Amino acid sequence: MNEHRSETQDQAGPRGEHVPPAQAAPAETDAKLAELEDRWLRAVAELDNLRKRIARDAERIRAEERSKVAAEWLPILDNLELALSHAVRGDGGADAVLEGVRAVRDQAVTLLNKLGYPRHDESGVPFDPARHEAVTTVERADADPGTVVEVLRPGYGDGERQLRPAIVAVAKKVE
Amino acid sequence: MNEHRSETQDQAGPRGEHVPPAQAAPAETDAKLAELEDRWLRAVAELDNLRKRIARDAERIRAEERSKVAAEWLPILDNLELALSHAVRGDGGADAVLEGVRAVRDQAVTLLNKLGYPRHDESGVPFDPARHEAVTTVERADADPGTVVEVLRPGYGDGERQLRPAIVAVAKKVE
Repeated sequence: MNEHRSETQDQAGPRGEHVPPAQAAPAETDAKLAELEDRWLRAVAELDNLRKRIARDAERIRAEERSKVAAEWLPILDNLELALSHAVRGDGGADAVLEGVRAVRDQAVTLLNKLGYPRHDESGVPFDPARHEAVTTVERADADPGTVVEVLRPGYGDGERQLRPAIVAVAKKVE
Repeated sequence: MNEHRSETQDQAGPRGEHVPPAQAAPAETDAKLAELEDRWLRAVAELDNLRKRIARDAERIRAEERSKVAAEWLPILDNLELALSHAVRGDGGADAVLEGVRAVRDQAVTLLNKLGYPRHDESGVPFDPARHEAVTTVERADADPGTVVEVLRPGYGDGERQLRPAIVAVAKKVE
């Protein structure tokens, strides 16, 4: 970016530097015309270059972000395999293995939160179409109609950064 | 991108459209100077806009890619939780639960491959500093010196798209 920016600053010059109207002598006018045309052509050439760079940069930024996010999942996969290898070796029994797998689950939820996608699995809250997708309604004497009574699949993220809404069951009026 | 591109095509005009030298009458020269200056100023203004857009686009592209990759991991997390919920309910016994967790592990490896980061956990191959990080050497009568005899942590990706090298143990000459 920077070398580009400074280069153009030079060639553009201050906006106030106005071209004097035609009282100038022919030779001066000639030079002025040539200089202006040169500036214009250079600006147009730089525009072309910048457009090409935009396309290249987009792919580079995408690849960088993809590898950054994918790399963050590797320790989670490592830990999952570690838990499995304990199971194979019979270390600590089935409960210890499950404990390990649960820790991996928590680690994954923490990572999603860190990436900007907090988990949403709250029940007892009012149904909100922006955050919930209702797949069923149930009669529940102990819950107000329109209350989320069960989260069938948690949601992640909020607003524009929502990865998916939570899939929920919602209380309806008891007949 | 597109509306920008076509707009500039118009304003830039073909490169061949050269400004006639100063034999032109003063009024024509005047008009030519004004037109050239206008073109130049417009090209410079567009350069400014394009530079600002580059910064905005980078953040947008990054956010898009981040959410795309993060979303791909959600089914894996879902399946991990499904396996755990079977364990809690005691469905199918410990072996069935482990089978479920193993399937999740395979799913994660498949996703990494799909994202462009194939797993590398081959032993028996020659040590390659581009793909391996040797943390130990071992005397092994059944392996040529310089051969990978154990993968302690698998690597993912290749070349520029390498997320991390494999951590390995390498055979050394038996004394």
